[in-house]
Amino acid sequence: YTRAEVARHRTPSERVWVTHGTEVFDVTDFVELHPGGADKILLAAGGALEPFWALYAVHNQPHVLELLRDYKVGELSPEDAAPPAGDTADPFAGDPPRHPALRVNSLKPFNAEPPPELLTQSFLTPNELFFTRNHLPVPAVEPGSYRLRVEVPGGRALSLSLAELRQRFPRHEVTATLQCAGNRRSEMSRVRPVKGLDWDIGAISTARWAGARLRDVLLAAGLGDKPGDGEWHVCFEGLDRDASGTSYGASIPLERALSAEAEVLLAYEMNGQELPRDHGFPVRVLVPGVVGARSVKWLRSVAVSPAESPSHWQQNDYKGFCPSVDWDCVDFGSAPAIQELPVQSAIPEPRPGAAVAAGELTVKGYAWSGGGREVIRVDVSLDGGRTWRAAELGPRGRGWAWALWELRAPGTGDTEGTGDIGDTVGPIWNPRGVLSNAWHRVPVTVTR
Amino acid sequence: YTRAEVARHRTPSERVWVTHGTEVFDVTDFVELHPGGADKILLAAGGALEPFWALYAVHNQPHVLELLRDYKVGELSPEDAAPPAGDTADPFAGDPPRHPALRVNSLKPFNAEPPPELLTQSFLTPNELFFTRNHLPVPAVEPGSYRLRVEVPGGRALSLSLAELRQRFPRHEVTATLQCAGNRRSEMSRVRPVKGLDWDIGAISTARWAGARLRDVLLAAGLGDKPGDGEWHVCFEGLDRDASGTSYGASIPLERALSAEAEVLLAYEMNGQELPRDHGFPVRVLVPGVVGARSVKWLRSVAVSPAESPSHWQQNDYKGFCPSVDWDCVDFGSAPAIQELPVQSAIPEPRPGAAVAAGELTVKGYAWSGGGREVIRVDVSLDGGRTWRAAELGPRGRGWAWALWELRAPGTGDTEGTGDIGDTVGPIWNPRGVLSNAWHRVPVTVTR
Repeated sequence: YTRAEVARHRTPSERVWVTHGTEVFDVTDFVELHPGGADKILLAAGGALEPFWALYAVHNQPHVLELLRDYKVGELSPEDAAPPAGDTADPFAGDPPRHPALRVNSLKPFNAEPPPELLTQSFLTPNELFFTRNHLPVPAVEPGSYRLRVEVPGGRALSLSLAELRQRFPRHEVTATLQCAGNRRSEMSRVRPVKGLDWDIGAISTARWAGARLRDVLLAAGLGDKPGDGEWHVCFEGLDRDASGTSYGASIPLERALSAEAEVLLAYEMNGQELPRDHGFPVRVLVPGVVGARSVKWLRSVAVSPAESPSHWQQNDYKGFCPSVDWDCVDFGSAPAIQELPVQSAIPEPRPGAAVAAGELTVKGYAWSGGGREVIRVDVSLDGGRTWRAAELGPRGRGWAWALWELRAPGTGDTEGTGDIGDTVGPIWNPRGVLSNAWHRVPVTVTR
Repeated sequence: YTRAEVARHRTPSERVWVTHGTEVFDVTDFVELHPGGADKILLAAGGALEPFWALYAVHNQPHVLELLRDYKVGELSPEDAAPPAGDTADPFAGDPPRHPALRVNSLKPFNAEPPPELLTQSFLTPNELFFTRNHLPVPAVEPGSYRLRVEVPGGRALSLSLAELRQRFPRHEVTATLQCAGNRRSEMSRVRPVKGLDWDIGAISTARWAGARLRDVLLAAGLGDKPGDGEWHVCFEGLDRDASGTSYGASIPLERALSAEAEVLLAYEMNGQELPRDHGFPVRVLVPGVVGARSVKWLRSVAVSPAESPSHWQQNDYKGFCPSVDWDCVDFGSAPAIQELPVQSAIPEPRPGAAVAAGELTVKGYAWSGGGREVIRVDVSLDGGRTWRAAELGPRGRGWAWALWELRAPGTGDTEGTGDIGDTVGPIWNPRGVLSNAWHRVPVTVTR
C-alpha cells in the first residue's frame, strides 16, 4: 500500500487504517475497544501510530504489538518513503508526506499545528506532530552535495559539508520550544480581522535539538571581536525559493549569536533523529527563546553583517504595532523586528464548549517565555478572573522550554490561565496578528 | 537659620521660605507672581530650590538669581549641614534632613517618594527628590575610616578603604532607574489589604550612578571561574542595623555580578555628587534592571556564597504569589526572590480627579522594564481601553533607564497606559503588594 491509500481510511465508514513501521493495519473493529477511548485512536487514523505512542508511552509494550498483529492487512510499498513523483507545474509537488492528524491552516505552503489535545501530552513533541510553518515549497536537498556557506567581515568565508559540520564542531544539545509569532492569532482575529494564517493554540512545540553551536562556526570562520560600531547581525538564508528565486531569510543580533549562554545552534537533529524535511533537512538554525521566524530552515548561508536581513520577513513582517495602526497606515520601518517573545500560557484541555462532569475538573496547559526566562508560576481562574489558583508545574529543563502545567479543581465555570499578561486581547491587537498572549479563556459546561 | 526653621515656612499664612545655597529667602510675596504657577513654587516651600531648578532648567539664569536677591532674609547656620544632635534613645535621631517636598510614607524608617507631578519633569531625578526606601536607621559613616570587606571562596578576602575603591578600580558610569517592588502598591491595596508601605506611583527614580564594577572588585579579590556546581550568589550587608544588631542584607546571582554586560556597581556617586546619606553614603550596590531591594546601601560587606542571603528581606519578603495566597497560608520558601522586575508604565500627569479643559490634553508618563529590556512603545487609551494611541517616547539611554513619554490628544474621558501587562490589578494581587503593574488608570473630568 502507499501512504496515500492508508490516509484514505480515516473513519469507521471508510475503515480505519494505521501504520506501524512498514506494516499496515485495519483497526476498525478495535476502535470501540480502545482503552483510551475511540476519539483518541481516531487521531491516528490514516497515518502512523509512532508519534502517538511517543505521547502515550503505555503502548510501547509487547502485548500491544501482539494485539495489533491480528489487524494487519499488508505492508507499505517500498517506494513510499520517497517523495511523490509529482506535477512539475506545482512548486509544492515535491513537499514531503505529512501526518494526517495535523490541523492544516494552509496546504501550499504547508502550515499546520498539532491537535490541541495532544500539546500537553508530552514534554517533547514527536517530530511528525511538531507544528510546521513553511513560507515556501520544501526544497529537496541531497545531503551528499549539501554545502553551508559562512561569511564573516574581511572577506573570509567557509564552505562546510554536512559531514564537516558534524565532525569539525562539538555536538551541542538544547531542549527548546519554538513558537510562531502568530500562535493564537485566531483569538485576535475575533476582535478585528488580521492578515495571517488562522493559528489556534498549537503553533508551538518542543523538541530536543542537536547541532553545532553557531558561535563555534563563526569563530572557526575567523570572526574575532565585534567587527565595528553599532549593532551587528547574523543573516541567514534558506534553500527554499519562491517563483522569482527569492529565498526565505531572517537575522538575529550578532551579540546573541556569539553568546555561549544563548546556545544558538546550526541544528541537524530533532528528538534524536535527523531533521525531517518539513523542519529544515539537513540543517536549520535554532535560536532558543526567540520567535520561530528567525530559526531559518534548509540553511544555505550565514553572513555577519552591519544590517539586519533585507528579507521581506525581517523587514515587513513579524513586527508589533499599537492597535490603532491598520494596513492603511502601517509603517513597518517604525517598529523593531520581533526577537524574544513575551510570556505565553494556554489551555489545551478542556476544549472550548466541552461538557465536563461536576466534581473534579482537570485543566492542562503550557506556559513559556522568550529569552530563556523561566516560568515561575501559572495561575488559573475558574470564575472569570475573580479568584485564582496556582497550577502544578511539570518537570522541565531550563527556561528555553515550556512548562506543562495541570490543575485539578471542582469544575464551576469558565477557565482562564494567565502569565503576567493582559486580561483581554483587544488592547494588543495588531494588523499582523502577532504576539497574541492575553488570558486564554475556555468556556465549558458543567454537567451534573 | 536652621533648616528646621526654614521647613516651618511652607504656606503663605506661615510665610513661604526657601533656600538656595546657604541663603534663606522669604518668597511669600512672589508666590502669586511665579510664572510657572503658585502651586509649583509651593512644592519647594520650606526647602531647597536646587532640586526644582534641576527639573525646570529655565531658572538657572542670572536674572532669576537677581530677582531672588530681593527676597533674602538671612543665611543658614553653619552647623546645619551636620546631623541634628538628637535624642540618643531614638535610633532615627541621627537620620539626615530631608527635602520637605517628599511625600512621606513612613518617617522611621524613612520612606518617601517624590510628588508624582515631578516624576516626568526630568529624565534624571535630582538626588534630594529621589525616592527613599530605608529599612532601618541611616548609619553615620565616617568616610576616612570606612572599610568594605570582600570575601570570595577559599578564604581570600579584601578590605578596601573608600580611597582604594575609587583609585584601584576603573570608574564606571551607568544611568539606571531604581524601582521599589512595592511601587503602586496603593492600587493593589484597594482590591484587598496588603502588608506594606502605601506607595503611590513614585517609588521609582532615575540617576546617573558612578562607581567600581562589582565584577572588577570580585576578580581583584581572586575570584576565578565559577566556584562550584549550581547557582552561586553574591551576598551584601549594610552598615544599617536594627535594635538587635541585625543588618539589612540581600543577594544577587553570581552570574549577574560577573557579567560585564550587567554593569553591577559598587557606587559612590549619584548624579555627579557623592552619595547622599539617604542613598547609601559612602558606598552602595547598584544592580541595574533589578528590584531596588538588592541594591544594598551603606555597604559593609560583599561575600560570594553557594546560598542566597539569609536575610529576612531576601528570604521572607519581596516575593510574589498567586492571589489566593494570604498571610495565613503564605510559604515564602515556595517562591523565588524577585530579581528582574516586570515591565511598568504609569501616568503622573494628569492627576486622578483633575479637571482638564476640552480640546488638547497632555498625558505624561514613565515606562521601564527590568533586565535592561528596552521599552519599544507605550500605548495610551482615552476611552477605557477601547481604542489606543502610541505615545511619543523621549530620549533615553539603554534599557536600564526609564523612558519618559508624552501624548497630546483631545481629552475625552479616562486615561490609561499599558505595557504588555494586565488590564486589571486583581489577578496579580499578592499579600506583600509587590509587582503592581496593571494598567494605570487616571479618571479625569473634561470641562468645556
